[in-house]
Amino acid sequence: MTLPKIDHRIDVTHAGGQYPVLVGHGLLKAGSHWEGLLSGHILVVSNDRVSALYLDTLKASLTSSAACDVLIVPDGEQHKHLGTWQQVLDALVTLGAQRDATVVALGGGVIGDLAGFAAASYMRGIAVIQMPTTLLAQVDAAIGGKTGVNHPRGKNLIGAFHAPRAVLADLDTLQSLDQRDYQAGLAEVVKYGAIRDLEFLVWLEGQLEALSQRDPHTLTEAVARSVRNKAEVVAADEREGGLRAILNFGHSFGHALETAGAYTQLRHGEAVAIGMVLASQLSEALGRVPVGTHTRLSELLSALGLPIEPPQGSDPAALLELMRLDKKNHSGALRLVLLDALGQATVDTVAEGDILECLQRACQ
Amino acid sequence: MTLPKIDHRIDVTHAGGQYPVLVGHGLLKAGSHWEGLLSGHILVVSNDRVSALYLDTLKASLTSSAACDVLIVPDGEQHKHLGTWQQVLDALVTLGAQRDATVVALGGGVIGDLAGFAAASYMRGIAVIQMPTTLLAQVDAAIGGKTGVNHPRGKNLIGAFHAPRAVLADLDTLQSLDQRDYQAGLAEVVKYGAIRDLEFLVWLEGQLEALSQRDPHTLTEAVARSVRNKAEVVAADEREGGLRAILNFGHSFGHALETAGAYTQLRHGEAVAIGMVLASQLSEALGRVPVGTHTRLSELLSALGLPIEPPQGSDPAALLELMRLDKKNHSGALRLVLLDALGQATVDTVAEGDILECLQRACQ
Repeated sequence: MTLPKIDHRIDVTHAGGQYPVLVGHGLLKAGSHWEGLLSGHILVVSNDRVSALYLDTLKASLTSSAACDVLIVPDGEQHKHLGTWQQVLDALVTLGAQRDATVVALGGGVIGDLAGFAAASYMRGIAVIQMPTTLLAQVDAAIGGKTGVNHPRGKNLIGAFHAPRAVLADLDTLQSLDQRDYQAGLAEVVKYGAIRDLEFLVWLEGQLEALSQRDPHTLTEAVARSVRNKAEVVAADEREGGLRAILNFGHSFGHALETAGAYTQLRHGEAVAIGMVLASQLSEALGRVPVGTHTRLSELLSALGLPIEPPQGSDPAALLELMRLDKKNHSGALRLVLLDALGQATVDTVAEGDILECLQRACQ
Repeated sequence: MTLPKIDHRIDVTHAGGQYPVLVGHGLLKAGSHWEGLLSGHILVVSNDRVSALYLDTLKASLTSSAACDVLIVPDGEQHKHLGTWQQVLDALVTLGAQRDATVVALGGGVIGDLAGFAAASYMRGIAVIQMPTTLLAQVDAAIGGKTGVNHPRGKNLIGAFHAPRAVLADLDTLQSLDQRDYQAGLAEVVKYGAIRDLEFLVWLEGQLEALSQRDPHTLTEAVARSVRNKAEVVAADEREGGLRAILNFGHSFGHALETAGAYTQLRHGEAVAIGMVLASQLSEALGRVPVGTHTRLSELLSALGLPIEPPQGSDPAALLELMRLDKKNHSGALRLVLLDALGQATVDTVAEGDILECLQRACQ
């Protein structure tokens, strides 16, 4: 029996209770340590790429004789739609899954959002265990209970809040991530520093080499600190009445960039990196933060291999139009996450003219 | 300004707070009394039949200048599926609805379940106001936050718990119900008496004439007492961990009968009436209640114009197979609501052989 090294256990509190996030090395191999979390019929939802790497390991690590079925869905944000979601529901029906069934989401944010929303909707909610295998999912998507799919007219427009039973973040899976996906995940790590944890941001600025080499110890610290930041925010505001909205720093711009690129041109993290630069430029233009703030953030993101400008040919007016459908807006006004300082963010209403000017400057 | 007669206000407590159920005459006409409950973009979801009767009244009663769009969907349980649900979501997207938008469900249980699930899923949850126009919806479907749609393989297999912001039960709408729909609603009224309120059951047995004539005073008492019963049960057990399951009395058999009839042969309430008779016969066969219990219940249901036997040609084995997918079952065992006495119900595990025997006797 392989003993996993659980470096951190972070408990996330929500309206309906609490769930553990385990951060460690070798978790997937050590089923005996967590298979007590499984119940009823088990459906593992994954994609080609991830299942080729980890499905055998996962199945071999389960000592129980529980039926464990697998549904492989196509990889990529462009498949996170209602059609794929229905495939998961159909698989649960075919399995004869009852209310005590467990969905296991093995993959990145797309798998977690999709499988989580299917678990939320099947029989009005069955258990889901998130097993995020990408940096982005480990530090962001898998934590906090947001699930959902995209609508042709907007990202994550259809979904549910559905807390997982547990999150198992196996850091070993980060070693096999392709470079672009790994770097995209770092954008969300930097985000926590930018919005509420200046000490973490400074630490990240000093770890450029270790981060680029995926040093296991550095990754452990970066993931655990990110999870802790997210857990604190969602515990204070699960349903995004206020504070939780700061987690969307860079996301209003980012979602618009992703939608404009039909979810294929940019990784989510890349779009968020560009969005954070735009939001900090806007904060600077509005006189909220000292000149130089956006440069410092851009340099960190750039050093981590992330894009910091909208793709060539981006249309400022079209991006603004896409931002109007953003979930953070209340009728009429455009609301954005802005910086008050590095390490401190707030949500505020911004005139569309100021946003357009910011986009025009960046899209030149 | 028309003053509505609000006979009863019953507050329903749930995990996320509380909402009022207003039971009275003339509510739809008196928008000024409740339009403060509306916010943001407003989408009224209704069907042909109901909108022809009440949509103009509803719109005329609104004094505010708020944008109020309308989506008419086809009538009937056979349209309560994911395709119609997507129509509601698309209408919200087209409207540019934001998180502060309000869905108004004007119609029976199908409209309430469908519009409620769309509200639950749009941007992970926006407000819904239930305006039930059928007896069944006023005493059951609109109360308690259960929303959802049918899957070809089972009723309400896909859905969410989503508490409404308010429920407005206008008793005047019951006068225009066709006879079969009205009688179907009485099945759920009788249910509350059978499972937890013997005094109410006895009162109903004495009101056969007044109920058949839809006497306004009798209807007020019958609806308010039913709502109060349901509110007490869901306040104690919103997520159906235990007690709430007794509300499914007659429903395991009933859902199987509905599915076998492709949701067109029997009204939901009719299927529940037959199901309650079967469940009380089974309770008697298992020696849980005195001989004669099911006869007393059958006589009341029959006097109210409800069917008490499965349709000609029903296949006992096929019905049992459909019951296996019922949401109340945990892996392996069949769980049913049984009577311990008239006015007292409990959930218990029953051998499939006993259920089959009960079905075979009833389907002869």
